[in-house]
Amino acid sequence: MTRTLVASGFHAPVRGAIQEFRDAVFVLDDTGTILSMTEGAPVPDGATRLPHSHILLPGFVDLHIHAPQYPQLGTALDVPLQDWLQIHTFPLEARYADLTFARAVYETLVSDLLAMGTTTAVYYATVHVPATQLLADICLTQGQRAFVGKVAMDDPAACPPTYRDASTDEAVTGTRAVIDHIRHHPGNAAGLVQPIITPRFIPACTDETLAALGALAAETGVRVQTHVSESDWEHAHVQTRHGISDAASLDRFGLMTPHAVLAHGTHLSPADMDLIHTRGACVAHCPLSNAYFAGAIFPLRAALERGLHLGLGSDISGGPSGNLWDAARMAVAASRIREGGTDAADPTRGDPGARVDFRTAFYLATAGGGAALGLPIGHFAPGMQFDAIAIDPTAPLGTIRLWPGQTGEVVLEKVLHTAARANIAAVWVAGRPVKP
Amino acid sequence: MTRTLVASGFHAPVRGAIQEFRDAVFVLDDTGTILSMTEGAPVPDGATRLPHSHILLPGFVDLHIHAPQYPQLGTALDVPLQDWLQIHTFPLEARYADLTFARAVYETLVSDLLAMGTTTAVYYATVHVPATQLLADICLTQGQRAFVGKVAMDDPAACPPTYRDASTDEAVTGTRAVIDHIRHHPGNAAGLVQPIITPRFIPACTDETLAALGALAAETGVRVQTHVSESDWEHAHVQTRHGISDAASLDRFGLMTPHAVLAHGTHLSPADMDLIHTRGACVAHCPLSNAYFAGAIFPLRAALERGLHLGLGSDISGGPSGNLWDAARMAVAASRIREGGTDAADPTRGDPGARVDFRTAFYLATAGGGAALGLPIGHFAPGMQFDAIAIDPTAPLGTIRLWPGQTGEVVLEKVLHTAARANIAAVWVAGRPVKP
Repeated sequence: MTRTLVASGFHAPVRGAIQEFRDAVFVLDDTGTILSMTEGAPVPDGATRLPHSHILLPGFVDLHIHAPQYPQLGTALDVPLQDWLQIHTFPLEARYADLTFARAVYETLVSDLLAMGTTTAVYYATVHVPATQLLADICLTQGQRAFVGKVAMDDPAACPPTYRDASTDEAVTGTRAVIDHIRHHPGNAAGLVQPIITPRFIPACTDETLAALGALAAETGVRVQTHVSESDWEHAHVQTRHGISDAASLDRFGLMTPHAVLAHGTHLSPADMDLIHTRGACVAHCPLSNAYFAGAIFPLRAALERGLHLGLGSDISGGPSGNLWDAARMAVAASRIREGGTDAADPTRGDPGARVDFRTAFYLATAGGGAALGLPIGHFAPGMQFDAIAIDPTAPLGTIRLWPGQTGEVVLEKVLHTAARANIAAVWVAGRPVKP
Repeated sequence: MTRTLVASGFHAPVRGAIQEFRDAVFVLDDTGTILSMTEGAPVPDGATRLPHSHILLPGFVDLHIHAPQYPQLGTALDVPLQDWLQIHTFPLEARYADLTFARAVYETLVSDLLAMGTTTAVYYATVHVPATQLLADICLTQGQRAFVGKVAMDDPAACPPTYRDASTDEAVTGTRAVIDHIRHHPGNAAGLVQPIITPRFIPACTDETLAALGALAAETGVRVQTHVSESDWEHAHVQTRHGISDAASLDRFGLMTPHAVLAHGTHLSPADMDLIHTRGACVAHCPLSNAYFAGAIFPLRAALERGLHLGLGSDISGGPSGNLWDAARMAVAASRIREGGTDAADPTRGDPGARVDFRTAFYLATAGGGAALGLPIGHFAPGMQFDAIAIDPTAPLGTIRLWPGQTGEVVLEKVLHTAARANIAAVWVAGRPVKP
């Protein structure tokens, strides 16, 4: 059984080049796979035709979300990372022992992200197995493509007694329980939701747990996510503790596996980047969060030129925005600030050539994120999943204004910079309409 | 004839301190002046009571908007300032010789800004007298408090023949015509819209015109707006041409008058700041625009500590967003990037203590902007105008999520960081509802 949908819009299969398509006829199978995409083809009876003014884009891929932190989004941004964790974040995350609270937050979060066009989400949950399983259930119910990980964190020196794994065994057993739940979930035959092994970051874990999780990744083939070299503090912690860089240490523990998602990377060295590239892992660039907690701007352009797999992350709630639109906008602005420098009185300021433009930001939010995850998502082509967003630039409560004569990629540039939630008319994951 | 309105919300009469008010009873006269504001007072019959969940804020003051550039908002951000002017901006602005085009853009812009809560706008128009007068008319019709200036720009070396004043005389005569139109407008008895003398910036004007406009400001008492030390290029242009800084040169031409609005100031020296302070002028900080065109981050914290009058500007379309919410958010993020620095490999990076927080950003967007303009706006107190925004945090297409237990200024912090257009339920200027 196939379905046909006719739409015009944009995608960026390759970084730096925007492709526009007009009256493209998409034929989908019942798994949401695109069987064909043909511009100007005859439209069969029964086809769904998007309104002429609507603009189809690939769905957004958010590589780094702390789901339990959604209630504190936009708050507590004035303290250093380690205080932010101990004073604000760990006490909030500890509350997810309460499944009623977890359900209220996670249902709202997944719904809000889908409404903003985040069709794929890579989630940290908490240490709690039941609440993590619940988040996976909610993604399946609402139809969001997701990776969901139970957070592993067991070092008593770093984690409060009220919020940590009691032992390596508990961290591994809990992680296994979530993997089994997701893999054998009766609603997940298509694998829309996948487990992900989630050591919080090296400073929160004992070496024993890091090694055990690396072994678990090797045993199960399950993906890994963690943080890497986010801030001066984190970067220095690992250097002091292990005598090597954060990236090298993750690799030594077997945690830098193919498509591992490493958040931030603000302080990565060129050698670290080459290691990540060699291993086929990727960096989740979180430019808004970095402004608050990283003490530097990720060298995005340099990382792209080294061939790293890269995508964007909102880093809820390290960044004050919960949507990938703001992350894409800030990726461009932050790259310009890195290029230009900050202090006009310093004649040596800046990093010439550091800029990226909206084309790269759009690529990272879509095809770049998809390629980083190794999933058939992020652009439109036969064999890819139909994960998509329809933009209505004329929505009454929207904020896009297009003017006569504006055509081609200028339209995409305006949409990327000025769209609001009200402009998002429809969202599909695997061909299924999922907008709340 | 008085009216009474009951609401709860926040304002920041003084920088750094948020005041929350609960069930405040506002009594307004028919000019929109607040006669009294009393928390918990008895509510008279006939009073308007905002819904309990709504949050009242002072209206936003946008100190720097190029109204004719609205159609290119979010585009053309990849070229240097001088190319951006010649290739994109001047040709667009030249189109405002056509009043039909001008009306279409200006009606949309004023309506969109009011919908986002910008109750006071300081506008550059174009060189054209009729279109500038039309912008003033539209502000009056829609009820937006505004300063509206005909742009003066006459240097043939900098301005294309298709878009400039033909002479100093034309620049001055045109400016006078707009001043007269606004001052004697039958719909402007209350002075809601005011003229403003607007030399584009020194690089676009001859010395003769700069001097003549300074004399006109002295003669008429009309305010001045222009740009100051925006970029390396502009800053160096004035230094080379006049042998003194941009700020000092403006002062010498009589253009640094009380409440003059000087946009950007990214490259101001401490001495320039002291001059601006002494003259009672103000700086419109445009953090989003600065990321694209300034090559540096305005030293906001240092300027505040020198006592400068400061507010925020969207700088449509130098910045990719047309609303002051994004400017306020970026003011915080940019200050954090200035504090932290950009290149993690540079151990001397950053500017310790440069940060500001949401409290300062909120102050600048409201009371700071009002004080910079010397108008009775920006916070709530007897004698102030009732310019206000009502936020509905539960609006269906909105993006604010408040959670049980979140009270006090955390609520304001979340509103400031996460509100969308759909969350803005009502807007008042001078006590009049103006939301489109």
